[in-house]
Amino acid sequence: MRFARLGPAGQELPVIVDDAGRSFDLRALTADLDGAFLAADGLAAAERALAEGTLPELGDADALRFGPPVAPPGKIVCIGLNYRDHAEETHAEIPAEPIIFMKDPSTLVGAFDEVLIPRGSVKTDWEVELGVVIGSTARYLEDDDAARAVIAGYAVSHDVSEREFQLERGGQWDKGKSCETFNPFGPYLVPASDVADPQNLRLRLDVNGITRQDGTTADMIFPVLEVVRYLSQFMVLRPGDIINTGTPAGVALGMPDHPYLRAGDVVELSIEGLGSARQTLVQA
Amino acid sequence: MRFARLGPAGQELPVIVDDAGRSFDLRALTADLDGAFLAADGLAAAERALAEGTLPELGDADALRFGPPVAPPGKIVCIGLNYRDHAEETHAEIPAEPIIFMKDPSTLVGAFDEVLIPRGSVKTDWEVELGVVIGSTARYLEDDDAARAVIAGYAVSHDVSEREFQLERGGQWDKGKSCETFNPFGPYLVPASDVADPQNLRLRLDVNGITRQDGTTADMIFPVLEVVRYLSQFMVLRPGDIINTGTPAGVALGMPDHPYLRAGDVVELSIEGLGSARQTLVQA
Repeated sequence: MRFARLGPAGQELPVIVDDAGRSFDLRALTADLDGAFLAADGLAAAERALAEGTLPELGDADALRFGPPVAPPGKIVCIGLNYRDHAEETHAEIPAEPIIFMKDPSTLVGAFDEVLIPRGSVKTDWEVELGVVIGSTARYLEDDDAARAVIAGYAVSHDVSEREFQLERGGQWDKGKSCETFNPFGPYLVPASDVADPQNLRLRLDVNGITRQDGTTADMIFPVLEVVRYLSQFMVLRPGDIINTGTPAGVALGMPDHPYLRAGDVVELSIEGLGSARQTLVQA
Repeated sequence: MRFARLGPAGQELPVIVDDAGRSFDLRALTADLDGAFLAADGLAAAERALAEGTLPELGDADALRFGPPVAPPGKIVCIGLNYRDHAEETHAEIPAEPIIFMKDPSTLVGAFDEVLIPRGSVKTDWEVELGVVIGSTARYLEDDDAARAVIAGYAVSHDVSEREFQLERGGQWDKGKSCETFNPFGPYLVPASDVADPQNLRLRLDVNGITRQDGTTADMIFPVLEVVRYLSQFMVLRPGDIINTGTPAGVALGMPDHPYLRAGDVVELSIEGLGSARQTLVQA
């Protein structure tokens, strides 16, 4: 089962997509796929309503834009250098505990929206990541079981990064992570109950048809449940919050010729079971 | 003229406070002091309504809690090491350009709310800061005049910081900046038009009656307008966003005996013309 938000930016309507690919309108249940809906166990209620046949099918779903599959989040928290091969390619030490940074929550866009190359940028880079969507308020979680209970679902996330801004302009990474449109998300939110093992998912990213990243979440240094447990020691996680869990090797920063993104480039990314996304780069 | 949000957390009502200290209910104009209200030039409309005598006075204002004077923001952006004496006391280099980091937007609390010392914390520290509230969407601002035009107003901000989490636990400062309740804000939002010179404001912070910080915004390395212009090159600033513009010398981190905050401590902070705040520390 998958969830999506379809329609123009800011006017998306919530849908559930069945295994045959048909979209059903959820507006009888909720105005949006937002934190309040997730916190009320809305995903399970939507699946029940679908099974009962009470939801109207959305006829023109194919013609609609995919928005991000969760309403604008409270925050986007990111884990840095969480794959051993990516830490090595960027000549960084393997972290002893998770590195935390943040993106402006308003960077969230749809899976097929344009990504803007910031003015003055020459080092705009890609990062395919497993995105986690939080479903319940979490403080000081004690163990993996407690962490598992607060995860609503998963989505493909693109943690677009400007490496000069991030690494050469004053020390804190946030400066290169929050440019406009820098977090395409989706197309789908897949409930955690439908992801058998979040540590066994293949992630891929191609640029202009050339495969650049081809990894697996099995290679995470800190697995998803540990990331969620750990984060909850330092901040309150709230329904609708997003966690980007790090990227595997293969970014432009780590390649000898540094093939950073240019206007017109096309990035396609996918995660096993979560769907595929595609963005075209456009100069801001 | 000053603005405030009064009432229990999550149920604050918007008020304007006249020069005699009387509070007037703004609910006939807006449901909240939020980004949409600021973007519609709501502060000026409220001042006109007050002058026209059309607003009902709020009789029991003194009995109500101060919430943060802007509705939960999209983001909180912070500038690091923006006062020369603070950079020196922490043995940091004077930054060549503004250092940017972020706080979880859900850390925002009222000016007199309790501040929680995180579990496991031994280095919870204070930072009085001039808070800027954005009133219009801003991208790639060109100069000081353009920056001035997007500032709605100013408020007292407390950028509470856990120094071990920030500096000794993995490299990015955000880890020590986003703990629950770590951004008391207010009590008032003062419109930019009522602040003659944001670079000539005295900032003070006392802990248990002992003055720890006593600075002036005249000592900022990067003044407010430059901070706003600079930030807009790296991210979109949106109505209701908050910018914490850095803290002057006098934090526990910079003192020989490192007198970090403990449960029961009382922090009082004030900025000239913007009001005074007071928070008691409580163990999380």
